[in-house]
Amino acid sequence: MSNRFGNLLCVTTFGESHGPAMGCVIDGCPPGLTLSEADFAEDLARRRTGASRHTSQRRESDTPEILSGVYQGVTTGTPIAVLIRNTDARSRDYQAIADQFRPGHADFTYQAKYGTRDPRGGGRSSARETVMRVVAGAVAKKWLQQQHGIRFESFVCQIGPHVPGVVDPQAALVNALQWPDAAQVPELEQFLDSVRKAGDSVGGSVEVRVHGVPSGWGQPVYGKLDALLASALMSINAVKGVDIGDGFASAGQYGSEHRDAIATTGFQSNHSGGVLGGISTGQVIRCRAAFKPTSSLRIPVDSISAQGEPVQVVTTGRHDPCVALRAPIICEAMTALVLMDLALAHRAQCGDVLPFQFSEQS
Amino acid sequence: MSNRFGNLLCVTTFGESHGPAMGCVIDGCPPGLTLSEADFAEDLARRRTGASRHTSQRRESDTPEILSGVYQGVTTGTPIAVLIRNTDARSRDYQAIADQFRPGHADFTYQAKYGTRDPRGGGRSSARETVMRVVAGAVAKKWLQQQHGIRFESFVCQIGPHVPGVVDPQAALVNALQWPDAAQVPELEQFLDSVRKAGDSVGGSVEVRVHGVPSGWGQPVYGKLDALLASALMSINAVKGVDIGDGFASAGQYGSEHRDAIATTGFQSNHSGGVLGGISTGQVIRCRAAFKPTSSLRIPVDSISAQGEPVQVVTTGRHDPCVALRAPIICEAMTALVLMDLALAHRAQCGDVLPFQFSEQS
Amino acid sequence: MSNRFGNLLCVTTFGESHGPAMGCVIDGCPPGLTLSEADFAEDLARRRTGASRHTSQRRESDTPEILSGVYQGVTTGTPIAVLIRNTDARSRDYQAIADQFRPGHADFTYQAKYGTRDPRGGGRSSARETVMRVVAGAVAKKWLQQQHGIRFESFVCQIGPHVPGVVDPQAALVNALQWPDAAQVPELEQFLDSVRKAGDSVGGSVEVRVHGVPSGWGQPVYGKLDALLASALMSINAVKGVDIGDGFASAGQYGSEHRDAIATTGFQSNHSGGVLGGISTGQVIRCRAAFKPTSSLRIPVDSISAQGEPVQVVTTGRHDPCVALRAPIICEAMTALVLMDLALAHRAQCGDVLPFQFSEQS
Amino acid sequence: MSNRFGNLLCVTTFGESHGPAMGCVIDGCPPGLTLSEADFAEDLARRRTGASRHTSQRRESDTPEILSGVYQGVTTGTPIAVLIRNTDARSRDYQAIADQFRPGHADFTYQAKYGTRDPRGGGRSSARETVMRVVAGAVAKKWLQQQHGIRFESFVCQIGPHVPGVVDPQAALVNALQWPDAAQVPELEQFLDSVRKAGDSVGGSVEVRVHGVPSGWGQPVYGKLDALLASALMSINAVKGVDIGDGFASAGQYGSEHRDAIATTGFQSNHSGGVLGGISTGQVIRCRAAFKPTSSLRIPVDSISAQGEPVQVVTTGRHDPCVALRAPIICEAMTALVLMDLALAHRAQCGDVLPFQFSEQS
Repeated sequence: MSNRFGNLLCVTTFGESHGPAMGCVIDGCPPGLTLSEADFAEDLARRRTGASRHTSQRRESDTPEILSGVYQGVTTGTPIAVLIRNTDARSRDYQAIADQFRPGHADFTYQAKYGTRDPRGGGRSSARETVMRVVAGAVAKKWLQQQHGIRFESFVCQIGPHVPGVVDPQAALVNALQWPDAAQVPELEQFLDSVRKAGDSVGGSVEVRVHGVPSGWGQPVYGKLDALLASALMSINAVKGVDIGDGFASAGQYGSEHRDAIATTGFQSNHSGGVLGGISTGQVIRCRAAFKPTSSLRIPVDSISAQGEPVQVVTTGRHDPCVALRAPIICEAMTALVLMDLALAHRAQCGDVLPFQFSEQS
Repeated sequence: MSNRFGNLLCVTTFGESHGPAMGCVIDGCPPGLTLSEADFAEDLARRRTGASRHTSQRRESDTPEILSGVYQGVTTGTPIAVLIRNTDARSRDYQAIADQFRPGHADFTYQAKYGTRDPRGGGRSSARETVMRVVAGAVAKKWLQQQHGIRFESFVCQIGPHVPGVVDPQAALVNALQWPDAAQVPELEQFLDSVRKAGDSVGGSVEVRVHGVPSGWGQPVYGKLDALLASALMSINAVKGVDIGDGFASAGQYGSEHRDAIATTGFQSNHSGGVLGGISTGQVIRCRAAFKPTSSLRIPVDSISAQGEPVQVVTTGRHDPCVALRAPIICEAMTALVLMDLALAHRAQCGDVLPFQFSEQS
Repeated sequence: MSNRFGNLLCVTTFGESHGPAMGCVIDGCPPGLTLSEADFAEDLARRRTGASRHTSQRRESDTPEILSGVYQGVTTGTPIAVLIRNTDARSRDYQAIADQFRPGHADFTYQAKYGTRDPRGGGRSSARETVMRVVAGAVAKKWLQQQHGIRFESFVCQIGPHVPGVVDPQAALVNALQWPDAAQVPELEQFLDSVRKAGDSVGGSVEVRVHGVPSGWGQPVYGKLDALLASALMSINAVKGVDIGDGFASAGQYGSEHRDAIATTGFQSNHSGGVLGGISTGQVIRCRAAFKPTSSLRIPVDSISAQGEPVQVVTTGRHDPCVALRAPIICEAMTALVLMDLALAHRAQCGDVLPFQFSEQS
Repeated sequence: MSNRFGNLLCVTTFGESHGPAMGCVIDGCPPGLTLSEADFAEDLARRRTGASRHTSQRRESDTPEILSGVYQGVTTGTPIAVLIRNTDARSRDYQAIADQFRPGHADFTYQAKYGTRDPRGGGRSSARETVMRVVAGAVAKKWLQQQHGIRFESFVCQIGPHVPGVVDPQAALVNALQWPDAAQVPELEQFLDSVRKAGDSVGGSVEVRVHGVPSGWGQPVYGKLDALLASALMSINAVKGVDIGDGFASAGQYGSEHRDAIATTGFQSNHSGGVLGGISTGQVIRCRAAFKPTSSLRIPVDSISAQGEPVQVVTTGRHDPCVALRAPIICEAMTALVLMDLALAHRAQCGDVLPFQFSEQS
């Protein structure tokens, strides 16, 4: 039951890192949406590894095949299945460590839970699974754009100790670090080179901004927009924290500072991140996810074997020195899936409620 | 659909702040657990308002009545319904603002979503709803304690600019601020008095620690323990951020620093917060939630009426200067509900997997 | 998890036959529906026992209290909780048999499942639970009527060996047997008197017809309208069979006889019962449920005690000689809940699909 | 959301009759079950068309590929995806009628719901979808057999006007009609030949019997074993009725006749079909499904085009004269999925309840 996401737009994913294929089934998509494999290309490219020296050198072609749910280029309302064959899985990289628990990875916990596991490339716990989130997210983003004019931005907003001086989301699209401050990129590349050469890795954070979400989406009490976003983002590999709007900084604020005043033209600020009481305000949705540094390092670390004997683990496979660099499009995808699910839920329950209109144009 | 929480242990809550009653239905609880209204007393007292000058002066007796699911003091496996009548609802406090959108509250978004709303005390969006989370959480905590020896700790770990010098969770149980550093309490009380006198409020954070969770609980990929915790905590009123283990600090760490080494006796540190790959490691589960400052202030703020006319909002009802102070037991409750749900899910799928044993006792 | 029904319109019920109260929470109802306790009166009266000598003489006032979700007489979109206190529970009737398994009842299976049970009046397995289905069904029926002009009819269509000579659903509303052939009622009353006097009971069947359901409701493949109806009706106490349209008779038909031809004005017959491929055709929905005879008889039967010793069971409590007589409104309620749930699901996924129009008016 | 089945063992299927492939994802299967493609062979063969002149002459090789969830021949607890490519789809058979609504099929209702449809072979509404139910069912049957010694039997129990004189489930396995009375087979073959030559079809019924289900499986009130079976069987293409135990015949019985007496060795009869109060009694589970005759006939019938113009429909593709003949294994599969789901649910909630033991061996 845990490999599906969403209620009305329900995405089920399957596949292991070094198994034959990754796949997803997207159930509940409205009929009438034009869709083809080409719609996945841009987002898959943004997620792809091997594009720069700062990401894993595993080179998957990521060629999706739509198996169902689309007829003559248009969705029919039946489940959309998409398959991507794994082509560059080098399981020999992992044979040395098949019998060890890599610290910081899910090796130990999968073994503890299931009494068995697929050790090849982390099996199901690999970040390879996120390729299907991106595929499903592309469908959601297309629908949200066409039906509601919704637009997504995402970028890396922290790499280790570094934070951007200025935030220009467009800039992030054109550099390998997905960094919103172009001027800082050379310095950060140097920093990441040094981390990689040391055999180490570093954490990072990602911000997503969504423009054009109407007011009224989200469901009290346990289906709050922000609660679902938190779950969606925290479910991404390596995420250890999630916040919305001013987020953790809110804990240090005064009420007179945090609350967003309302004028006849709309809200006057956006500390809330576009969510009040779990429902969208009509402002920009703004959320962040913090990624831990990957634990696959050339620096040795103490661990144990599956038999409980002490071992030293050194990871020589292909890994990302900073997993956050590939994460913006994954965070976008999860955010889009949440929003489309809530858009459908809102139409179900409140399909005949008139949208709120401010008395003056902002 | 959004007023229920959990899958196998499914809690549905209902009730408005100033309606006749709050209630919950707890479905899926195993049979054979001794349970009576007395089991809710301690946790309800910890959540209760009016206990000190630092919380809202609304004084609810919070007298729970078990309506079903318990026979001769023992759960039967059928749904446990609990009702608490509202007794100190002063709706007149809200009549002045029934027609206004209080900035920072859900007034605007409920109106935008539903085209109507119950304005009395915030209706369904009031923190009063959390009384039922505490009731349900008490059931989960009792079961987790009896079946698995699991023990919870929770405390306030930030109030505005203040953080504890030392962290003694026991200390938090015996002061009105739920603060884990007894020496700081007088200074913090002074700070909160000044905030309250200024008609303002302040944010805060809460930490929950869970001792005794076995390894193996949690479900990849979308039902990760940490993803469900994130959703559970973010669904609490006023929460704007959630993190696990080192959380947001992980974004600034190196991999060699973050990953927890493993010895023959167990893990050697706990940066992960007791979760790897979405599954419990067997260590202490550690998570935090950041609360925004309440927006109900005596300081006026610009807003609009339901008719779209500009108004000034001043809130004179009974409110908390720092909502985090009452939140630890609520966070505990939500954490307990997640854990019990996952305990049952683990038993369902992996009921015949032998628990992992380290080769040496730690 | 098993005490809730429906997805978008999700009803959770609780309560035991002789516990303090029965209750339900209706989550997902659209806002803006006028609703008060009076809306439940007619349907509750139709279900009520004690109205004639042919039903159990337990006399419950069935006084519902709306606890939430309605403000100033209108639904707000938040969960609607309804409570009915049990007032005529005579547990002494059951003390003699608390320690025995009544054949044909759930006593044995609840004990086998849970290792414990509430024996008073059958506890949770009692048909008393259906009072809450009727309450929830009344909400669904009101919404379906107001939004779509949908109208329900239900009647008893078999009592033991007897079937109606003519079917006039209106006639069924004005006799105690809910029988659609007025001329047969005296003979059937005599039959039921003889059954009751013999200390025995008899089975029966119920038919529901729904007028005005538009085409397009229902969801392939596992959420078919007829699959959900089957589940909904089979979940009613004592139901042993469910069919749709020509139902079981279809097994004896030829294809040239069963398929319904289509003209420019619409379908020319309705063997399908208004469902094709799990989706409504726009015709009358027609379904049936078969009820077994109640097993609570004055005629002794062999059984065992909870300790496994042989016993003779004689039931002297208040029971229905033919449980189908009270069932039409319960079947209506369950059918209404399915239809409203699917109406919302259809609006969610296909809210912008234009309804099909036949080229000519029929 | 409607293309998945089950809660803890959750099966999602996808694929259109003449699309590239059929597939399923089986989520929640316990780890440690040996599984390979060979495990599907026997059941797929039993469902396959083209094996005799009495079934459709479409010849699919039905070659399954396991894409995930199995490592070194053993399930890992992660989702099991299975793919079967469609190889003998002759869409030209359908081009003539792509623009027409075939009476008795889902063409009209899919168009009404979605505003579009895949007309090739019925698209998603084709019985081809059931190939994946059989695949998933084979997994469930294997687990139920290994864990609980549960064994399935299924056979055709009605073909048009014919019912078996004797019922020998073993006999049904060795004739093309899956008929439990070997002596009648020649006569029935003659009957089916005459139906086929007339260009017509005929209905039929299927019975499933499950041996070895322990007492205690099933969940009151809406998750009753029989309610879930009803939904599972009614979701199969062409099913119009479902009953359990004595089923519809119960409506004509007396209580003294229907209730099953209990002795110290166990139940003395099985009118209930192995279910009381929605929970298994430990006896043989017995249920039936009634199948309508297929509507694809060479006999012309009136209908309309998608443009609403009158047309005559004649179907010349490959079809089954009696769809019930291939259905036993499909009914078995759905029954197995329900039982395994409830087995897991029972372990989740009642994993520590001791099984009921009769005081004497039967």
